[in-house]
Amino acid sequence: GVNGVRIAKRLGALSEIGLTPDSGSGRMGFSNEETAAKNVLTGWMKAAGLDVREDGAGNVIGKLEGSDMKDRVVMAGSHLDSVPNGGHFDGPLGVLAALEVVDAWKESGYKPRKTYEVIIFSDEEGSRFKSGLTGSTAMTGHTNQEKMRAVNDVFGTPFKEVLEQAGLNEEGLFDSSRDFSNVEAFFEVHIEQGKRLEREGLPVGIVSGIAGPCWLQVGFKGKAGHAGNTPMDDRQDALAAAGDFVRQVYRTPAEVSASAVATVGQLQVYPNGINVIPGEVVMTVDIRDIHKETRDELADRVKELALQTGEQYNTEVSFDEKVRIPPVPVQESVLKIIEEAVESLDIRPVLLPSGAGHDAMMVGRCVPVGMIFVRSLDGVSHHPAEWSSLNDCVLSIHALKRTIELTMER
Amino acid sequence: GVNGVRIAKRLGALSEIGLTPDSGSGRMGFSNEETAAKNVLTGWMKAAGLDVREDGAGNVIGKLEGSDMKDRVVMAGSHLDSVPNGGHFDGPLGVLAALEVVDAWKESGYKPRKTYEVIIFSDEEGSRFKSGLTGSTAMTGHTNQEKMRAVNDVFGTPFKEVLEQAGLNEEGLFDSSRDFSNVEAFFEVHIEQGKRLEREGLPVGIVSGIAGPCWLQVGFKGKAGHAGNTPMDDRQDALAAAGDFVRQVYRTPAEVSASAVATVGQLQVYPNGINVIPGEVVMTVDIRDIHKETRDELADRVKELALQTGEQYNTEVSFDEKVRIPPVPVQESVLKIIEEAVESLDIRPVLLPSGAGHDAMMVGRCVPVGMIFVRSLDGVSHHPAEWSSLNDCVLSIHALKRTIELTMER
Ligand SMILES: NC(=O)NCCC(=O)O
Ligand SMILES: NC(=O)NCCC(=O)O
Repeated sequence: GVNGVRIAKRLGALSEIGLTPDSGSGRMGFSNEETAAKNVLTGWMKAAGLDVREDGAGNVIGKLEGSDMKDRVVMAGSHLDSVPNGGHFDGPLGVLAALEVVDAWKESGYKPRKTYEVIIFSDEEGSRFKSGLTGSTAMTGHTNQEKMRAVNDVFGTPFKEVLEQAGLNEEGLFDSSRDFSNVEAFFEVHIEQGKRLEREGLPVGIVSGIAGPCWLQVGFKGKAGHAGNTPMDDRQDALAAAGDFVRQVYRTPAEVSASAVATVGQLQVYPNGINVIPGEVVMTVDIRDIHKETRDELADRVKELALQTGEQYNTEVSFDEKVRIPPVPVQESVLKIIEEAVESLDIRPVLLPSGAGHDAMMVGRCVPVGMIFVRSLDGVSHHPAEWSSLNDCVLSIHALKRTIELTMER
Repeated sequence: GVNGVRIAKRLGALSEIGLTPDSGSGRMGFSNEETAAKNVLTGWMKAAGLDVREDGAGNVIGKLEGSDMKDRVVMAGSHLDSVPNGGHFDGPLGVLAALEVVDAWKESGYKPRKTYEVIIFSDEEGSRFKSGLTGSTAMTGHTNQEKMRAVNDVFGTPFKEVLEQAGLNEEGLFDSSRDFSNVEAFFEVHIEQGKRLEREGLPVGIVSGIAGPCWLQVGFKGKAGHAGNTPMDDRQDALAAAGDFVRQVYRTPAEVSASAVATVGQLQVYPNGINVIPGEVVMTVDIRDIHKETRDELADRVKELALQTGEQYNTEVSFDEKVRIPPVPVQESVLKIIEEAVESLDIRPVLLPSGAGHDAMMVGRCVPVGMIFVRSLDGVSHHPAEWSSLNDCVLSIHALKRTIELTMER
């Protein structure tokens, strides 16, 4: 059956790959560390009896052929990359969970009727190219080739070269989309990265939908000037405008929906001198909701606020939409199956939205997806202190296994 | 007499030293370019008959002994360094004006009764160490030795090494303060760096006082978190707090005095990720007024606003006071002399405050100072487009010459 000791050993072994000085995880997408982690997993997959291949995007697919309906496919998985100084559960837990199902079946002699695939998606986090979900985007055929050909990573290395360093190439990645018509569903176990399960006192929860991010870049252009010699009423201060805008962005989600969020995470000031009135400010706004209508309404309001504020401060406003991914609802029939699986463990099934993006969000554009969240200590993620108890991890894998079996038998 | 062609040629020759690709001036304090410009000036000073020496701070002093009261000293000068891509008038005009007075006297046979000194102060602008006025601070004995020993320049080079590269050393600089007890006054011609003279249609103006800057570093510390998965009501967003604060800082000077200004020029966000709630923001606030009371009141209000805003957003506020220089009023008796000089040119004498800092601000802590401002095209400075007409420059030098002669004869 599901083996807690094996899970603990495997989480521990993976945590050694790319361990940072803060005891965090340093496995950026397409790095040697990500590749090393994939290689270790490939070994465990083969030992479990899976037929393993890698696609042109570096996604690893371990296949167990179905006994009866081998043309029908059920998938599970996640990613192995991390943010630069991240935690050890975000990603690896989902991959290990998907594999543990196979090891458990092997031991119990269970033979699934449909084909089962364990998937490791490449470069989910987005720390390398400020976009992320690279592997799941490629597999589902949503890659923007023009954009990716032009992109450099955070160290200034072109996309093409980064791929080559990882033993891949652009054409292979652009060609790696697959046919999903025979895939019934994709399931992902993931840490919650929030505090709701902790507050409810529950080990696992069922994701009701995945919020779709809209990433806007917003610029304010005023006029640089001497901080000492320019009277207050003769300024076009880009940062005064930007500051007022940031304050308003913070207040607006509550007006639109209870689940909507908006975050100004990145902000740069030019020329950024102590005694120089800022001539230009460039920032990003991350806007999300689980409902497309309210997410798009919030994005419209944010743009409207920027234009109004720009006018008020006599500054010019510009926009650049970096990302707009539709939110992914989880189908009623999938929720029913996961609820049944969770109830079989005597756990109260609770639905909660995912504000964070996941590989399941991209896969959800092609096939039904389901996600099981695991309680996160203090809601912390993307940080070495990220932690979920072994007991909670094991319960989530039991829930995943039961979910997959119910899907196999459907 | 005052020779416009000579002024034009000398301004042109100096503009070649450190010329930037944008046709701006690139003569950072203590750079080879600043030294080269000082060397050229030293040659011209000697040719004009001055006895030239350099002090331990790299300040150049050209002396013309008085015919009668040689123990009484009258000084004039400015600086030759520039901001990284600055203009060709900010600094050089004041130095050339002080020297032109000597050349004019030489030609007319005028012998000053008191000793006259032409001074070139080192590293006025502050682009190198984010402080500035290094030469005038050293000469007036206001150097904070502990702070300067610890400081690195913008390239990360320690103060000590920067000085050594310029042929100077720390002990020499710390020892370079001089006795000002026999100095009657210091005069500085400088471009206005504002639009008031242009609006009044006047070539020159008389500085009524020099605003004293207070440079505060203000920090907001909240909690970084996931931009997608953290509900709006569970955030400690340092940038939301900082943005609201910036907006309030912008509104506050008008409540305190008509001449007060406050500028948030520098702002950094940590960790500055698109999808990460900012955990920390550090910014600078430049606060100035020509009256000490209102300047200090504004600084107090800014601090109070930071504390209030920090509390409102559940973030921690910290302060670090980098600079607080007292404003320097110009004495009534000095204003009278400059007014008489300006009127002798048939120019309406208009008083205006200086919001910008100048070497005269440091010297003004020891002896009476006077400043003559020259009309700036569009008020632009610290930019290659900085410009004052040759006619305006020449008029300012006539005003300076007459001012010095009146002081000599007093
Ligand atoms: N799950 C997760 O942290 N995804 C990173 C991408 C995002 O949601 O901003
Ligand atoms: N005059 C001038 O630009 N000084 C630079 C220092 C300052 O006033 O901020």
